[in-house]
Amino acid sequence: MSVAIAGYSTTKFTLDQTPIEELLVSATKELFQNTKNLSQKDIDAVLVSTNNNKKYLAPILSEITGIAPKIAQSIENMCNSGANSIVSGYSYIASGMADVVLVVGAEQAENSAQVLDWDMSRGEFTHPIFWGTMFAKAHKREFGTTDEELAHVSALNHKNAQDNPAAYNPKTYTIEDIMDSKRLTEDLRLLDCSRSCSGSSAVLLVSEEIAKKYTDSPVFISGIGQKTTSASFTKNELTRLESTIDAASQAYSMAGIKANQVDVAEIHDAFSICELMILEDLGFASKGKAGKLVLELYKNGSKKINPRGGLIGAGHPLGATGIAQIAEITSQLQGTAKKRQVENARIGLVQNMSAAATSSTVLVMKN
Amino acid sequence: MSVAIAGYSTTKFTLDQTPIEELLVSATKELFQNTKNLSQKDIDAVLVSTNNNKKYLAPILSEITGIAPKIAQSIENMCNSGANSIVSGYSYIASGMADVVLVVGAEQAENSAQVLDWDMSRGEFTHPIFWGTMFAKAHKREFGTTDEELAHVSALNHKNAQDNPAAYNPKTYTIEDIMDSKRLTEDLRLLDCSRSCSGSSAVLLVSEEIAKKYTDSPVFISGIGQKTTSASFTKNELTRLESTIDAASQAYSMAGIKANQVDVAEIHDAFSICELMILEDLGFASKGKAGKLVLELYKNGSKKINPRGGLIGAGHPLGATGIAQIAEITSQLQGTAKKRQVENARIGLVQNMSAAATSSTVLVMKN
Repeated sequence: MSVAIAGYSTTKFTLDQTPIEELLVSATKELFQNTKNLSQKDIDAVLVSTNNNKKYLAPILSEITGIAPKIAQSIENMCNSGANSIVSGYSYIASGMADVVLVVGAEQAENSAQVLDWDMSRGEFTHPIFWGTMFAKAHKREFGTTDEELAHVSALNHKNAQDNPAAYNPKTYTIEDIMDSKRLTEDLRLLDCSRSCSGSSAVLLVSEEIAKKYTDSPVFISGIGQKTTSASFTKNELTRLESTIDAASQAYSMAGIKANQVDVAEIHDAFSICELMILEDLGFASKGKAGKLVLELYKNGSKKINPRGGLIGAGHPLGATGIAQIAEITSQLQGTAKKRQVENARIGLVQNMSAAATSSTVLVMKN
Repeated sequence: MSVAIAGYSTTKFTLDQTPIEELLVSATKELFQNTKNLSQKDIDAVLVSTNNNKKYLAPILSEITGIAPKIAQSIENMCNSGANSIVSGYSYIASGMADVVLVVGAEQAENSAQVLDWDMSRGEFTHPIFWGTMFAKAHKREFGTTDEELAHVSALNHKNAQDNPAAYNPKTYTIEDIMDSKRLTEDLRLLDCSRSCSGSSAVLLVSEEIAKKYTDSPVFISGIGQKTTSASFTKNELTRLESTIDAASQAYSMAGIKANQVDVAEIHDAFSICELMILEDLGFASKGKAGKLVLELYKNGSKKINPRGGLIGAGHPLGATGIAQIAEITSQLQGTAKKRQVENARIGLVQNMSAAATSSTVLVMKN
């Protein structure tokens, strides 16, 4: 059975510590406003994607918004929670357990998934920037990647975010601004980093048969890949994201496409170096050449990669990020992305990952 | 596609505050020991059922135990997390996204789901015993249910738990012991209550085609029902569990059976009054008559209901409870439950619910 996306919403990302219930409800209300013929009684499952410590958020969201679903649960896999929840919703529909699934992701700016305290191999270096900087150092050493190339990733994402009304940060930055920003580690600066923020996003998944009831232009999930390689950093190779390579291969195979057929992609630029590695590991650039690709995209004003500004430009509400990526690609494939629109976008891709790509999800979407 | 249970394990429940990682790993190791031909590389998905606040537990469990699954995530729906996770695993297999899913539930004795702080309608009464006592008072008023009938629920469960090596509490209690135990509210005593404890349980779900590789006697999930009616207490009726009635109706219909065909059942006796209401709402007794049914079971030494001792006798490690219930019914249908064995058990049932039956899951299982 084919599974379609029939509606979506994304709220404004902010640095406020908005209550988690308010974030969840805002995205849900907006999705109802955006989706024709949707009634609370249609919804078979409510899946909440979050790292928030509150229990029972799916029934709480359901009650506040007047939904009495069969299935209600929270799903957590750190920064990859969003795409994980979408795949879970997909499987509820594809297995015949549900026809209509509401997936809502939300996170508060301050949250308990910002620091990785489990992995003793990190020593005192529990903040994600330390693995980001190890990736950057290794990539520079092996491929001659420069700080200027990293700066272009940030500049490109902040430029794209200008046209995204949900982005937390309205500023643009020159390459000089970025290279002059505070040096946080030997290899990464403040503006190489995404920022944890508050935000929420929702997606409505439905079975193909009923998709036209809710939208004139359904978008289909045609390829899915997921892989978990580890939970600790020390098992990672430093210049490639093994889980992304594996997940992409699964997703391309299921969708019957190759990397060069992708028209528009949302990828998980937690740090600027991640964007380069992901572009290479998805097959959009050969190994060590993503820096040049980003320079070209920046000079040509292309919106092909991270049209909403990525995590660096739009902000990173952890549990909402994967959902917001999918909402963006849906809008792109429907041709409704306004100033962010990539012309003739027919095939879209989402890459969402958790800490240091210990797990990755890749989705291929078609209209 | 049919989904089979091909392996299971349950660790000893205790009142110790065992680390959550240790609980998860113990159940997983024991499941591997109990299951023939199971290799880490076979496992497509690792689902962790818990209310623990630690993030990222599914990748952590995977790494410690040498598994590199496609899908790894935590699933939370308070006390109903276990059965929710099993249904999620079922849908991954039935949709073709996975062939082998490991579901592991674990909880620490002290955990953040013990108190319901969201529902303002409870006022200061955030502990679950307050809704338990409202149920008890209403049931007594409407049906003339007696304290002695409630005491028999506890006595029956504690008696059954004697033959369950995983149960936290080795004691048996007379009706007098129970009726003399500390009165906690106007209508419930200490021994009417289940106790939060540490424990873990795991179940291996596989597609029908490959089930015989892992077990000589696969057990099949043939009926599934789930319903979420609310998150607040005030929406509940006081003498019936609407979500259980709805979930049971779905599960019986999917399995093509009636209540009187069930040979053995695990039900969610968070408080003694819950067992009476559940027996009625599953259709095992007519409304108001479950007290008499329990008296009969107790006198006859029947193990039909809660053979492992239920939550009152075995203990209640929240995220593990639903998994342990399913492990028990699997064992019963395989005829391997030793002293707990119900003779000729062919059709089994599991009822798992969250706070005050704001959500319920009912599963029908067959061999």
